[in-house]
Amino acid sequence: MKTLRVELGQRSYPIHIGDGLLSNTSLLAPYLAGQQLMVVSNETVAPLYLESLLTTLGGRAYESVILPDGEAYKTLETLNQIFDALLNKQCSRDTTLIALGGGVIGDMCGFAAACYQRGIPFIQIPTTLLAQVDSSVGGKTAVNHARGKNMIGAFHQPRCVLIDTHTLSTLDDRQLSAGIAEVIKYGLIRDANFFLWLEENIDRLMARDSVALAYAIERSCQNKADVVAADEHEQGSRALLNLGHTFGHAIETGLGYGEWLHGEAIAAGMVMAADLSARLGWISQTEVERTRRLLQRAKLPITGPTELESAEMLKLMAVDKKVKAGRLRLVLLKSIGEAVISDTFDPALLHATLLHNQPHNRE
Amino acid sequence: MKTLRVELGQRSYPIHIGDGLLSNTSLLAPYLAGQQLMVVSNETVAPLYLESLLTTLGGRAYESVILPDGEAYKTLETLNQIFDALLNKQCSRDTTLIALGGGVIGDMCGFAAACYQRGIPFIQIPTTLLAQVDSSVGGKTAVNHARGKNMIGAFHQPRCVLIDTHTLSTLDDRQLSAGIAEVIKYGLIRDANFFLWLEENIDRLMARDSVALAYAIERSCQNKADVVAADEHEQGSRALLNLGHTFGHAIETGLGYGEWLHGEAIAAGMVMAADLSARLGWISQTEVERTRRLLQRAKLPITGPTELESAEMLKLMAVDKKVKAGRLRLVLLKSIGEAVISDTFDPALLHATLLHNQPHNRE
Repeated sequence: MKTLRVELGQRSYPIHIGDGLLSNTSLLAPYLAGQQLMVVSNETVAPLYLESLLTTLGGRAYESVILPDGEAYKTLETLNQIFDALLNKQCSRDTTLIALGGGVIGDMCGFAAACYQRGIPFIQIPTTLLAQVDSSVGGKTAVNHARGKNMIGAFHQPRCVLIDTHTLSTLDDRQLSAGIAEVIKYGLIRDANFFLWLEENIDRLMARDSVALAYAIERSCQNKADVVAADEHEQGSRALLNLGHTFGHAIETGLGYGEWLHGEAIAAGMVMAADLSARLGWISQTEVERTRRLLQRAKLPITGPTELESAEMLKLMAVDKKVKAGRLRLVLLKSIGEAVISDTFDPALLHATLLHNQPHNRE
Repeated sequence: MKTLRVELGQRSYPIHIGDGLLSNTSLLAPYLAGQQLMVVSNETVAPLYLESLLTTLGGRAYESVILPDGEAYKTLETLNQIFDALLNKQCSRDTTLIALGGGVIGDMCGFAAACYQRGIPFIQIPTTLLAQVDSSVGGKTAVNHARGKNMIGAFHQPRCVLIDTHTLSTLDDRQLSAGIAEVIKYGLIRDANFFLWLEENIDRLMARDSVALAYAIERSCQNKADVVAADEHEQGSRALLNLGHTFGHAIETGLGYGEWLHGEAIAAGMVMAADLSARLGWISQTEVERTRRLLQRAKLPITGPTELESAEMLKLMAVDKKVKAGRLRLVLLKSIGEAVISDTFDPALLHATLLHNQPHNRE
């Protein structure tokens, strides 16, 4: 087992990574001081791992709420099901919520914890690669709105993140690829050596080599922890984690949540960001191709969806959270391993990127 | 004009109190740095004061969202109308929300500001006495759940509180009384001299004497600001502000939100708290009677509603936010001017208080 730490003063917390951690009672014990526990999970994950988690929690009083599975349910309405469950069981402020599932469950459970009685503790037990390498760490919680992804949320740090790599054995291939998109992101934005490692080891990851996966998770979490510790509330550098996300969120919102997985949308988004960076003369065409090639080897999309015209994409991008003073701000690349935030690019180049990265223009 | 200050380090802010402040451009100007403004108001207040506020805001781009009036609408569904409006207008993180209305509007607008894009600034312009002396100050924001009052919310401080005492001229008598309940609360929990002043001046307040009202608002806000500065997130002493609230929330939830005004419910609740304190031997029967008499002179209820049996009250009280480790914690009185939090009282005495304070038992 490896343990990393997110350093945030009084709100610091550990990330435990290892095989079979779900059955490790002692790791969870220190965080379960409250009299009540409630596990939030979904219809896919609960049948696989809820029983085992409850055994680990031992004789403790627990409750659970099982939500439908998928990004389409990451809404205020579903969130209210968590509040209903908490109030039906008369849960007090001492209650600890436990998120058992992927990014959707973690985001909603975390947001419910942020709001219930104005804030209760919660623990992340991510069971998808994407949640393990990205969304479970850093305290961003949210639900979607029909007009924009993650538009309603809060910063609320978990007390602990418990990553049991064994849960990846039940993850389907598409979800695995989606997680690898966020792994590749860390290489692109701040870790050139990791990008090289990924170019050499992507086939091992795709073959679910457990040593390679554990290493990729650990290195991703270390990158995430460093960025969050330096800028918890995204006043500056944390925004670099959003490489490809303004493009990606537009795809997710435009197609309807859940059509493309988040990781798939940001894979296409990262290609667009690389393409625009090349048009600005910041990176070479070779670097764009390396990015495209690595994502493709991870079986991820490298163009936007056919259904979304570039004009529609632009419109959707204009409501993203990164808009400031009326200007669209994008995370772009200065090289593989170095990202920057820019709002000074020529809009015509962005338009060219969007046109170029529609599938019918690339085939 | 008087200006008080809530001292919270970087989150400190002023409370301006005076007649006609709604027309004072310079007071608002420093807080409107963003490119976009959205005023949140309701169907009662907007026709009276929205025009005037928009004139004060001058040539600035603004939007407004007008919600239905009343505690019954303080829900996640109504909150979503604010999010809809913000997203329809493509409001970015630079947007400042302005709450123009009573406590319901302030609580919902503040919670919307806490959650929209994980947090944007907001300003409180309270137009009811209750909001001016209590809910607009201190950063508690929330919506209700069918099973519990203010169960879903956040701590989110405003940038400024602007109290235009002129708005009280359009307040109906019932709302005025409801506000006075919270004014009397400050006397009971921490300001014995203010309680004496209220005993001498309650008729002036009821007659809407503007000098007396301004003084009562100022002294209430000073008390509130002091308490909030000492304990922003209610880890301890701030809970004393909830005198009568666990009883009162049970009344509001039990009857259905909006049947009794919040101030009415906590008036009856404060009598119950005083009654229980006397049963514990902490205060004298004379002090209970002084409390009852002052509330009665303010035309406030001094017993619970006929419809709620004591067993039902107990059940409703058990889901209040003040429950800790399975024990009900109540704010009680050691004297007029000194409150304490207790979870060690004999439940039989609480039961006796609830029985005694049902109307048919007192008539």
